[in-house]
Amino acid sequence: MWRPALSKTPTEIVTAERAGLLLARLRTQGPLVHCLTNTVAANFTANALLAIGASPAMVDNTEEAQAFARAAGAVLVNLGTLTPQTAAAMRLAVKGAREAGRPWVLDPVAVGALDYRTRLAADLVSEAPTAIRGNASEILSLAGETAQAGRGVDSAASSADAVEAARSLAHATGAVVGVTGERDYVSDGARLVALANGHPLMPRVTALGCALSAIVAAFLAIADEPAEATAAALLTVGVAGEMAADGARGPASFATALVDTLYTMTAEDLEKRGHIEPCPHAARSTLRSTS
Amino acid sequence: MWRPALSKTPTEIVTAERAGLLLARLRTQGPLVHCLTNTVAANFTANALLAIGASPAMVDNTEEAQAFARAAGAVLVNLGTLTPQTAAAMRLAVKGAREAGRPWVLDPVAVGALDYRTRLAADLVSEAPTAIRGNASEILSLAGETAQAGRGVDSAASSADAVEAARSLAHATGAVVGVTGERDYVSDGARLVALANGHPLMPRVTALGCALSAIVAAFLAIADEPAEATAAALLTVGVAGEMAADGARGPASFATALVDTLYTMTAEDLEKRGHIEPCPHAARSTLRSTS
Amino acid sequence: MWRPALSKTPTEIVTAERAGLLLARLRTQGPLVHCLTNTVAANFTANALLAIGASPAMVDNTEEAQAFARAAGAVLVNLGTLTPQTAAAMRLAVKGAREAGRPWVLDPVAVGALDYRTRLAADLVSEAPTAIRGNASEILSLAGETAQAGRGVDSAASSADAVEAARSLAHATGAVVGVTGERDYVSDGARLVALANGHPLMPRVTALGCALSAIVAAFLAIADEPAEATAAALLTVGVAGEMAADGARGPASFATALVDTLYTMTAEDLEKRGHIEPCPHAARSTLRSTS
Repeated sequence: MWRPALSKTPTEIVTAERAGLLLARLRTQGPLVHCLTNTVAANFTANALLAIGASPAMVDNTEEAQAFARAAGAVLVNLGTLTPQTAAAMRLAVKGAREAGRPWVLDPVAVGALDYRTRLAADLVSEAPTAIRGNASEILSLAGETAQAGRGVDSAASSADAVEAARSLAHATGAVVGVTGERDYVSDGARLVALANGHPLMPRVTALGCALSAIVAAFLAIADEPAEATAAALLTVGVAGEMAADGARGPASFATALVDTLYTMTAEDLEKRGHIEPCPHAARSTLRSTS
Repeated sequence: MWRPALSKTPTEIVTAERAGLLLARLRTQGPLVHCLTNTVAANFTANALLAIGASPAMVDNTEEAQAFARAAGAVLVNLGTLTPQTAAAMRLAVKGAREAGRPWVLDPVAVGALDYRTRLAADLVSEAPTAIRGNASEILSLAGETAQAGRGVDSAASSADAVEAARSLAHATGAVVGVTGERDYVSDGARLVALANGHPLMPRVTALGCALSAIVAAFLAIADEPAEATAAALLTVGVAGEMAADGARGPASFATALVDTLYTMTAEDLEKRGHIEPCPHAARSTLRSTS
Repeated sequence: MWRPALSKTPTEIVTAERAGLLLARLRTQGPLVHCLTNTVAANFTANALLAIGASPAMVDNTEEAQAFARAAGAVLVNLGTLTPQTAAAMRLAVKGAREAGRPWVLDPVAVGALDYRTRLAADLVSEAPTAIRGNASEILSLAGETAQAGRGVDSAASSADAVEAARSLAHATGAVVGVTGERDYVSDGARLVALANGHPLMPRVTALGCALSAIVAAFLAIADEPAEATAAALLTVGVAGEMAADGARGPASFATALVDTLYTMTAEDLEKRGHIEPCPHAARSTLRSTS
């Protein structure tokens, strides 16, 4: 009897219950997350990490990045306000993370729109990131589909348009790929999950995606399974966004409530509100990859 | 019969109604605003731009600044936390903006107080900024009146003291000049308008002036007439400041409310609250320049 | 009759009444505080300084740092997101401060955990800082007790563990040393005071310690006696933290309320809520140092 290879079966990546367990573990362990991120996102990212229970440290000079990455629970590399100096530090941090076997996350901000960072991102993708988190334009660009490159830091495409790109990028690189937007998708190259939480105010808060990538790193630091950790992080932030919208009067009070919610939300909130969807693309893609 | 040259007539620069139309257009078009700004202001500026409906992108490395400026709707150059590296990127961004015919705004933070940035600002002023937005000390310094140079980033003079400097700077450079303070003034060298909104908490929020300059860039990106766009931006933020003060408990809750208000305010708010004043200096100056 | 040398007597460093007087003076004088700080802390630090009544300016390039420090009321050097460029600017700022006789504060972020900044901090400590403010791990490291080095930017030790290190560091360097944590301690090498205000949400707000060091600089700029100024600054922020916790829904609304409180709090709040404790370590240490 023929059956597809188990690794290609679209089994469940995450459940709300498992996400809740990981959130609890994150709060207990308080992992050190080494962030090389942009100047717009640094403060908000650190506050989001502190709120959820992690211990952030922003160290992005070439003198310290490698040694610090070796000691961290996970490393975040975010290309937002790249300079030649921080690019060099990023390469060293990735080297340190790999030497010490630490998970690391790539956030390819605005890749595709600008050559310099697109080349750096290609180099970094070859350094085995544990996870890649981007918007649709960024993931399409990394997957080699340059037609829909973003405009600046915002995506010109919807996340649904990048589902196949996310899967193929994950398959080609071995990284878990998360593409966020109106719906979020996570793939490990074989499996795929869609997460349908979130709120329209989220893209009106700068650096929310950057903070999300840092939270992916925090979950990776305490989890055994990268795809589950990545999906749990996206689910947690999506649910927090929904909860934070109650009573928000605009994007700034929403951002305040979001960080507060990361601090106060419970596993029960994830179970009650989390929308984890069987992904319609999954079956199609499995057929394609086994045909 | 003698009459003054039309270009010197102090006709209206902006009306509340026109400002409301531009605000609506800004929200519809969502212009990409390329910001080279300081590390204190980056996050708040991006959030203010997102709230008002623009799409901010902070790209300040020498590898990308020129190409990115060519593709942006408008460019902001803010000298706040200048380094030799960002200064080089600023020059390239201005070059890109000029090549592509994009409007660009100069925010000459602390010019006059420090030689290095004063020299850079003089160079940049010669590169035909579309608008210059500063406090009284900064505008006095750029206009060559060095006696009242500021102390650090705060102005030692009142905006009313810099009205003539604003006009002469505008006349000499061709830039629209906005000088902000207790009252805001905008001049294109011939015309002058005073805007009398705002709130005393505004100078207690860091980077509010920097964000204001970015919002000027956003209005320039979608407007036909730079003086009108600059005045509309200042009017919008002044009215938002007044509205945000209701219920604020101090400068931080005020800043949150201000960003929320930029997101929610309407053309009606501008019409109901906007104080656009016939400027007493206008007649005097017109007489002087035609005498 | 034997009695300890007067300079070693643990006499009072600060009273709530004196702290209130200094707070009032700070608001009246509005000292210019020149900050060379990290990219995570810059915005929050500037807002905290503005709220309490100071005038912040972040200038950390090598072209301007020395001249600007000479003109400032006080200088803050914070090693958070150090680069070789900002390190050079820090050395120049310290030079400028010393030339002009300005007080300066060292915030040795993550010293002990990373060699590069540990060496720089050692150099800077030899440049006669007026005050040093750090967490327990940082102060232990600076005092030469390397066993309990921190993990990233968070302390692995409690502030009570670093009381003797704070005193010995103050004694060895001539700087006032403040070590903050569950309790805060200030020593000038002879005297010691414990401050027992604050709130558990404070370590969940990024850059709160960094902003606190900047507020120490602001108090130093307007005070005659560095130990009193340092303790008054720590007392003020600790009391503000307690007040801000009322009604906070998590760390972000707490941070907003804290900045609002720095703006609105009164000398009466300090007198009503300030917990200044006779320090149990004082007697023991005096005996030790006179034995």
